[in-house]
Amino acid sequence: MENKKPKIILTGDRPTGKLHVGHYVGSLKRRVELQNSGEFDKIFIMIADAQALTDNADNPAKIRDNIMEVALDYLSVGLDPAKSNIFIQSHVAELTELTFYYMNLVTVSRLQRNPTVKAEIQMRNFETSIPMGFFNYPISQAADITAFKATTVPVGEDQLPMLEQTKEIVHKFNAVYGETLVDPEILLPSNKACLRLPGIDGKAKMSKSLGNCIYLSESEADVKKKVMSMFTDPDHIRIEDPGKLEGNTVFTYLDAFSNEGHFAEYLPEYANLDELKDHYKRGGLGDVKVKKFLNNVLQEELSPIRARRAEYEKNIEGVYEILKKGSEVAAETAAQTLSEVKAAMKINYFDDPAFLEEQIQKFNE
Amino acid sequence: MENKKPKIILTGDRPTGKLHVGHYVGSLKRRVELQNSGEFDKIFIMIADAQALTDNADNPAKIRDNIMEVALDYLSVGLDPAKSNIFIQSHVAELTELTFYYMNLVTVSRLQRNPTVKAEIQMRNFETSIPMGFFNYPISQAADITAFKATTVPVGEDQLPMLEQTKEIVHKFNAVYGETLVDPEILLPSNKACLRLPGIDGKAKMSKSLGNCIYLSESEADVKKKVMSMFTDPDHIRIEDPGKLEGNTVFTYLDAFSNEGHFAEYLPEYANLDELKDHYKRGGLGDVKVKKFLNNVLQEELSPIRARRAEYEKNIEGVYEILKKGSEVAAETAAQTLSEVKAAMKINYFDDPAFLEEQIQKFNE
Repeated sequence: MENKKPKIILTGDRPTGKLHVGHYVGSLKRRVELQNSGEFDKIFIMIADAQALTDNADNPAKIRDNIMEVALDYLSVGLDPAKSNIFIQSHVAELTELTFYYMNLVTVSRLQRNPTVKAEIQMRNFETSIPMGFFNYPISQAADITAFKATTVPVGEDQLPMLEQTKEIVHKFNAVYGETLVDPEILLPSNKACLRLPGIDGKAKMSKSLGNCIYLSESEADVKKKVMSMFTDPDHIRIEDPGKLEGNTVFTYLDAFSNEGHFAEYLPEYANLDELKDHYKRGGLGDVKVKKFLNNVLQEELSPIRARRAEYEKNIEGVYEILKKGSEVAAETAAQTLSEVKAAMKINYFDDPAFLEEQIQKFNE
Repeated sequence: MENKKPKIILTGDRPTGKLHVGHYVGSLKRRVELQNSGEFDKIFIMIADAQALTDNADNPAKIRDNIMEVALDYLSVGLDPAKSNIFIQSHVAELTELTFYYMNLVTVSRLQRNPTVKAEIQMRNFETSIPMGFFNYPISQAADITAFKATTVPVGEDQLPMLEQTKEIVHKFNAVYGETLVDPEILLPSNKACLRLPGIDGKAKMSKSLGNCIYLSESEADVKKKVMSMFTDPDHIRIEDPGKLEGNTVFTYLDAFSNEGHFAEYLPEYANLDELKDHYKRGGLGDVKVKKFLNNVLQEELSPIRARRAEYEKNIEGVYEILKKGSEVAAETAAQTLSEVKAAMKINYFDDPAFLEEQIQKFNE
């Protein structure tokens, strides 16, 4: 019988706000599928509060306030604490210790060349005043991934340079100190259309401050209101006008959410999305009709999530216990890895009987 | 009765080699005086192995091999574990966690402007390939100092920019999260001549690789051999020639070590160092005579250190226990500070009953 290497997932989110449908199609839905596939031996889902603090140091209350929101979102979409260990990053102290030692294996200029770091710096208008913690986050992320011996990191393509950095650290560490860390692989989304859902105003980025997100926790009425106000084709004035699909948010959302079953149920005059698109392009199909269909599709997806959330909200203490227990399990797992790391580096003086023996021998020669 | 703020010292050394007479006059001798002054409530002496690893990541064995050497040097010069808590940095995990959060309060460009970092980078020929851990060491040092609520950091003037960085972090942390950390003060050496003892070859820097150090653990014969080979004035060929004092290592060492008592005992024909210097400058005083005197002075200083070392070397297990106990005490102290830090940042979700109450209230409104 072959002793197969356990398949372990590490992933997570920064608790800087409630999660929205962009998170759902971009990662959460897939995460639940992976969880339920039975293919993974362990799944660790991290609420990355410590990472969120690297560029929110002045506002820790924002992070604190969103821990429970993100936990509720996780449980509502179907992450199951019996299968997925949900934990809070700041409560796994071992991660900072791993980060500290990995920092010796990466140069400043290597981090400066990281395209994701470059892009994030630009996005945040940091320029020359990047906090060290933020600059260092590819190394911190390597600690997160390796602490749990993750084999599989399901993230978007934009995170490839981050995972490359982790792999470099793993290879360097293993080369210098001996085979210790597990080399992880990225698991890219299968459906590229889902990667980045735009805001309801058509802007590429959903953001709380722009007010252009549909949150997983939103009421049926609010979701409908947002769908009905969605950005479409500004030149599509009269129903008979031909419509454009490019940049048409309603169709981007349908690409991400709709299937043939939805047509059969809510819009049986079309067999599938292609037929609907053809009609829209030809002219003669009004935005309101398409939006109502999208609303039905979204409500079907969101209503079980909403119902589960309502249940969990009645039992906040239970969710708190899930996080507490999850963080304990995560800390135990990371402590085991850290102990292997320190043994490999031979800096575990008091746990390693060889240290005292060596010293006695040396001074009694 | 006034409740005085406790006076606490934090200082230490990187275990990259045995300590030498340069360390002794530069810091160790003073450290013992401060210890015995009774003016300090607590003294923490750190064997900075984690910091040493930041630029020795490829060679952890070198650090491991020198932990016990440095501990023996400490005890030999008179550091007393009953008064000074000697500990190993890597065994106080809390330091890495503090470092991690302080990194959010310092920008990359602020570190790049640190003159000590600049100088150290130049000295090590790192240029563009500085390891992140090394680049980050002013922040790591701030963690070391604040973890023990040190009020007093006895270091050389060259370390002033490092202490400035710590003070900036303390002020920033206290301003953002509320008064938590203690603002430390630097305690500069009283005798500037002692600051930097040159190597026996006259080179400004004592270094193991140059073989120009006199170690505290060296035998009487080896010390004598090194003193007799010391660099003096290359133009002082015949005894009757006038001699130069500048750059004359033997006289630099006498500046640092000799006192009038030594003259009375070993060279009564001179009342003090000034008279000896005058004669040397005039001509008619040979190097050998001065070197023999320096040897007597050094042996007087070093022989009790050597004797204590011999005793401790017979009881390596006892020294190991001192380090183990010291590291435990240090970890407890740092854990207390860390818990205050996390409470101030309000990221102690599971220790803070307010967190659960807040959440229950929020979702049951």
